[in-house]
Amino acid sequence: MINYEALFKISYGLFIVSSGDKNRGNGFISNTVFQVTAEPPKFAICCNKNNFTAAFIVGSKAFSVSVLHTAASPDIFGRFGYKSGKDFDKLEGMDVGYGESTGVPIVLNDSIAFLECRVVQTVDAGTHFLFIGELLNSGILDDIKEPITYNYYRQIRKGVAPKNAPTYIDKSKLGPKIQVAALKKYECTACGYIYDEAVEEKRFIDLPPDWVCPSCGTAKEDFIEVTA
Amino acid sequence: MINYEALFKISYGLFIVSSGDKNRGNGFISNTVFQVTAEPPKFAICCNKNNFTAAFIVGSKAFSVSVLHTAASPDIFGRFGYKSGKDFDKLEGMDVGYGESTGVPIVLNDSIAFLECRVVQTVDAGTHFLFIGELLNSGILDDIKEPITYNYYRQIRKGVAPKNAPTYIDKSKLGPKIQVAALKKYECTACGYIYDEAVEEKRFIDLPPDWVCPSCGTAKEDFIEVTA
Repeated sequence: MINYEALFKISYGLFIVSSGDKNRGNGFISNTVFQVTAEPPKFAICCNKNNFTAAFIVGSKAFSVSVLHTAASPDIFGRFGYKSGKDFDKLEGMDVGYGESTGVPIVLNDSIAFLECRVVQTVDAGTHFLFIGELLNSGILDDIKEPITYNYYRQIRKGVAPKNAPTYIDKSKLGPKIQVAALKKYECTACGYIYDEAVEEKRFIDLPPDWVCPSCGTAKEDFIEVTA
Repeated sequence: MINYEALFKISYGLFIVSSGDKNRGNGFISNTVFQVTAEPPKFAICCNKNNFTAAFIVGSKAFSVSVLHTAASPDIFGRFGYKSGKDFDKLEGMDVGYGESTGVPIVLNDSIAFLECRVVQTVDAGTHFLFIGELLNSGILDDIKEPITYNYYRQIRKGVAPKNAPTYIDKSKLGPKIQVAALKKYECTACGYIYDEAVEEKRFIDLPPDWVCPSCGTAKEDFIEVTA
């Protein structure tokens, strides 16, 4: 029997994985970036085949990783985690560097370190590709701030995984603990964040009109009431 | 240019990955366990080809993952992280369960959750295999304790990666910051933990004779002086 709560015990960081070139690129929030060999240093990333960034990685055979810190702005998660680059240029207006070996864009906002990798293997894992890249360049952007973990994002920042994430869990699979309703709940239509009146001890309607989703920065008016 | 310090900004958990059967099995400390797809839930683990456990995973086409907590004993890291199952039976005397679908051993000591997976893909990543397994069973063993992260192990518990780990870094590749010597340093011959007199503000010789390595539990007498 699969207990889906057990899956939340696996620790991950949170990153922006980007690809493309100076003319057009894209990036997405990833929690699956990990080193697979030390000699030479190689990193694997997991990317939903439907992610707009997947095509850029396949095309350029390169990707960058930006390591986000614990105080990264909700806008970063909203822009890179819950919206698609098919609809707008996610990199426009951002602080972007370019990899010195491959030219891939590297998002510098709210990041403490970066990696630049050239893809040496692509593994078809079903709904997701696993891209394995050899590390070409890496650097520290901020040595004081702490890297954000997925656990921190969930527990402290109340964030949730988007549908394309390898760790996305359909709420119906979780136990009754978090399905028990009291007062009302409102869901962010962008990221799925739930405002729970029972937890917050404040009615949603009483929040100021300029209140935004603490997870992704979406406006209050774009929340919908959750019906059981 | 590769800055190896940047690699420490990638977040990981710490786990025991085990395989084999009721007669003989083995396990090792891993920091690379991560979900790769949600439908169906599949997990990848990274395993050095020289690890004794690798042959068990290839043979049984199954593995388990035990999620360690922040207070896991140094003995667990010593036994599973810095010693080889070629020399002794790591599972002897441990609290071991067996997967209900595959029969793989699951270490229960100091663990808060477990996964049982059947291998569906094996990727040759050079020095390491990447085993991708479909999740068959999972469970919570302790819902109060927190999962340990590699960062916590390094910064709070002062642990270091063993040579077979994908994240192992040869100290000569790191900057001068941590190579500057003051007073003396002593290295654990089992796990490589460094006792630095300048940091600890206590001479190694003044430590009690029953003092053990805080990372892996090895005796004081098995430390050697580090010469520049």
